[in-house]
Formats: sequence, C-alpha cells, structure tokens
Amino acid sequence: MVESFGSRLQEQLRERGPLCVGIDPSRELIEAWGRQDSVEGLEFFALAVLEAVIDTVAVIKPQVAFFERFGSPGYRVLERVMSDARDAHLMIVADVKRGDVGSTNDGYAQAWLSEESALRADAMTVSPYLGFDSLEPMLHLARATGRGVFVLAATSNLEGRVIQGARTRDDQTVESFVLDQIRRRNQLDEGLGSLGAVLGATRERPEFALETLGGPYLVPGVGSQGGTPEDVAKVFDRCPSNSVLVSVSRAILQAGPERSSLRDATRRWRDDVARALS
Amino acid sequence: MVESFGSRLQEQLRERGPLCVGIDPSRELIEAWGRQDSVEGLEFFALAVLEAVIDTVAVIKPQVAFFERFGSPGYRVLERVMSDARDAHLMIVADVKRGDVGSTNDGYAQAWLSEESALRADAMTVSPYLGFDSLEPMLHLARATGRGVFVLAATSNLEGRVIQGARTRDDQTVESFVLDQIRRRNQLDEGLGSLGAVLGATRERPEFALETLGGPYLVPGVGSQGGTPEDVAKVFDRCPSNSVLVSVSRAILQAGPERSSLRDATRRWRDDVARALS
Repeated sequence: MVESFGSRLQEQLRERGPLCVGIDPSRELIEAWGRQDSVEGLEFFALAVLEAVIDTVAVIKPQVAFFERFGSPGYRVLERVMSDARDAHLMIVADVKRGDVGSTNDGYAQAWLSEESALRADAMTVSPYLGFDSLEPMLHLARATGRGVFVLAATSNLEGRVIQGARTRDDQTVESFVLDQIRRRNQLDEGLGSLGAVLGATRERPEFALETLGGPYLVPGVGSQGGTPEDVAKVFDRCPSNSVLVSVSRAILQAGPERSSLRDATRRWRDDVARALS
Repeated sequence: MVESFGSRLQEQLRERGPLCVGIDPSRELIEAWGRQDSVEGLEFFALAVLEAVIDTVAVIKPQVAFFERFGSPGYRVLERVMSDARDAHLMIVADVKRGDVGSTNDGYAQAWLSEESALRADAMTVSPYLGFDSLEPMLHLARATGRGVFVLAATSNLEGRVIQGARTRDDQTVESFVLDQIRRRNQLDEGLGSLGAVLGATRERPEFALETLGGPYLVPGVGSQGGTPEDVAKVFDRCPSNSVLVSVSRAILQAGPERSSLRDATRRWRDDVARALS
C-alpha cells in the first residue's frame, strides 16, 4: 500500500517545522520587487522565492491564479518551479481551489494529482460548492498515488461566513458538514489520512471537534491577513502533533527581492510558528 | 459606456438561438473518437468541434479542466481554440469555476477577463464558496470590459443539494442568497446585466423569482445529464426573451468525430432548444 499523504506530511513537518511558504507572484508584489509584471518578472519572482526557502521549510504553496494570468507561458513557469521543488525534495501544495461536477473533477485530478502530469503536486486545494461527493475523482486518485486533497471548509476571510456558516437540513453548518465528510473518509487510511481541510487562522473555533479530523489542516490567514501563530496554536491545541500546516505568503514575500532578507523572514516565521505550536 | 455582456449576449441569441456547445475533451470522448488521449488528440478534438459549430451557434463553452490536464501545452491548445473562435465572432464562456479570496480573484480576473490575456473570454464561470463579495475583482473587471461572469447558484448534480440548499442566517437558501446578490448588482447596468447565474436544468424551481435576476442564465444539465429543453422552458418561462443560454456537451460531442454528424447534432439541439424556449 502507498504511504498516505498525511503520514508523509507529518514526517516532513517533524523534520522541518510546520511552515508552508506561499508563492504568490501578484502584480503588486512583482512590482514592489522593482520588476516588470511580465512572464520574465513572474519567473524571476517564483524562482527567487523557491531558492530562498529551499533548505528552510518542508512545503511550498504556489498560488496558481498568479501564474494563470500569463496563460500558457505562465503555466510553463509553474511547471519549472514545481520541477525544481521536486528535485529539492520540497512538498508542493497546488493552491487551485478547483471544484466541478464529478466528470469534470476527473480532469482536474489528472492535471494536479496524476503521475504523468507536469503539474503534479503532493496535494491540491479543492472547493466543495458542487457537493462533497462530486470531489470523489480527486479523493480517489490522491489516495491511489499517495497524494492529498485539502478541501475548503472555513476560510480566513469574513465574506465567506454567509455560505460557510449556513445550516444544512441536518442542522450542521456547511463548514462542519465539510469537516465531517473529511473525517469519515479519513477513517479508511492508516495514520494521518490523505484528506485535509483548509481552515483559516482568523476564525473562531467551529462547532466540529477539530482533533477528530484524522487528516492535516492547511491554515491560511497568518501574517498580512491578521492571524498570529498564537491564534493558530489556540484553535488547533488538541490536534495531533505535526498535523497543522501554517501558510504564510505576503508577510514573507514582501521581504524580497534580496535572497538573504527572504531567507531571514522565512526562518523567523518558521521559528515563531514552530514555537507557538510546540 | 461599454455595452454590457448581457445585452451583447441577448443580441447574439436573438440571431443564432439559445444553444451553447460545450467543448469537453475528456479522455473518454477523445478515445471514443478513436484518437489517442494526448495533446494532439486534444487539439484535433477541440478544433473539430469548433469547426462543426462555427456557423450554427452563438456561444461555445470550453471546459478548461480537460485542457489543464495536459499542463502548459494543453493551455496552448486552448489559446488557439479561443483565438479561432474570436476570429469567427463566436462568444466564449470559459468554464473554469474559479473562486478564492479577493486578492487571488484579481489574478483570475486578469487571466480570463483582461484585454491583454491570451485566455480572455466573453465570460467566465465562478464559484462563491469564499463569499460573494470576494468575487468583486471579477465583477469589476467584467463590467469595465463589457465581459460577463456566471456565478454558480444551483448546479444540475444531486450532490450539490446539501450546501446549495443550506439556510443562511436570514433564512435564505444558499442558492437564493447567490441569486439575490446577482440581482442587486445587475441593477447598476442598463438592459440585461453583466452578471449571470449558473442554474441547472434538472432542478426544481428555487425559492427566488427567476425573472428578477436582471442578467442571463447559463443552464447546464441538458442532454446526457437528463434535462430536456422542455424542462428548461418550464423553469425559465417568465424570464426575458434571449436571456437563457442552454449548454449541451456530451449529447452533441458523442456524435463525432465526423464533422457532418457533429453539425447535424448541433443543429438538431439548437432547433429543439429554440422551439421549446420560444
């Protein structure tokens, strides 16, 4: 049997700490680095971040929207970044938040989770608006290949509350429904499961008992979005050790373009997050 | 002021009928056409569909998941298909169902709605799970460039019911909340607005008064998914004329690879849908 993504992630976090660095080559950040917002600027930015974090963290999270805005040449840059990251034994979470009906999700699974794809990642983020069961093709391929899926449950932004806090017929909030579905499916895995949840750091604790998920959490919203490592530690205090992956993007990226400043910011965040979560 | 997407669409549907042909180059369909599931197979498939429908319908809807599974070469094929479609004055709905926090949605808006992008479409589909207001960058750029956005409201698949039918604090269903948000924003436009809704044909009528949306509907689920043109006519009977875009994919695509069969199937569906909706 293939080792589950959850177990692989847990080992990596034990060795290198719980920080995930987001690679977000937005127009604003590329220009703040004094570069032109072009494919060349994109490539310079993404490779610089990769180089600066390569020996410091276990996981990177490219925000695919910022590559996609350059069309196929942007995806070519993403493929290069992913290939270099793989060579350096970094784990990759492709932040794509894909979600459609099942037959279409099979296409997305092939793109981000199949062995043959140049875009293959260790895990991808997905959105459950079309139904949790419609995600089955991603869940299935992830499990078969030792990869993972992080399903959006409760996000860090306030606007998400209306839908994520709505109540299902069984009087669960939508976010609790999603967490509960993840929990059920993780029971099939030994150790920490292949299925994780995206749960924002700036949120109050949901109704769901977080320590029962059986899989990892991906936690955005730390740094520029206002969450602190201490907030994260409080929300996830009962979860298994090394099952919480804390993602920081802008607060690190704005330290660029100097590699040494990027590296210092990464180390500082890694140590702060590790200390708070220990 | 730029003419709104809704008004442009309405003119096109008046001239060419309410059918939108989905371009879904899935592994299953490419192989059913007797081709290898490769970038070459993808390109053959997508261009054949385009050629077969070019004089028959107003709108095509590439399902981007099936291009993305080939990585950057797949996106290159998509760019070629979109460019050829633009040359032939076909309208393009990019079926991507993107949705993230606002700053990331700005990246997606640049990819699919900006004048400079090789991936620019007339409209894109988006997902509201992270909050309706987080979609603002897409809505803003769409309105500024005469383009459109179709927001997922109620989809055609059964698994979607739990979340789309959940109740917000104001005791609206999630789908009605989404439709209501679209309605409010369309009041800013003259004529039919830039903001549309995705509403499945196989669904019972939602609590929302559909004729008040002020924008177009994109209706999947017709054909292979079980919906009929008569179902669509019943659900949308009070909506303004030429504001309903009916999307058919597999039921047409499986007629290939012969161009004449594809063309015949397209014409048959176009006439059936037009008759039911008239």
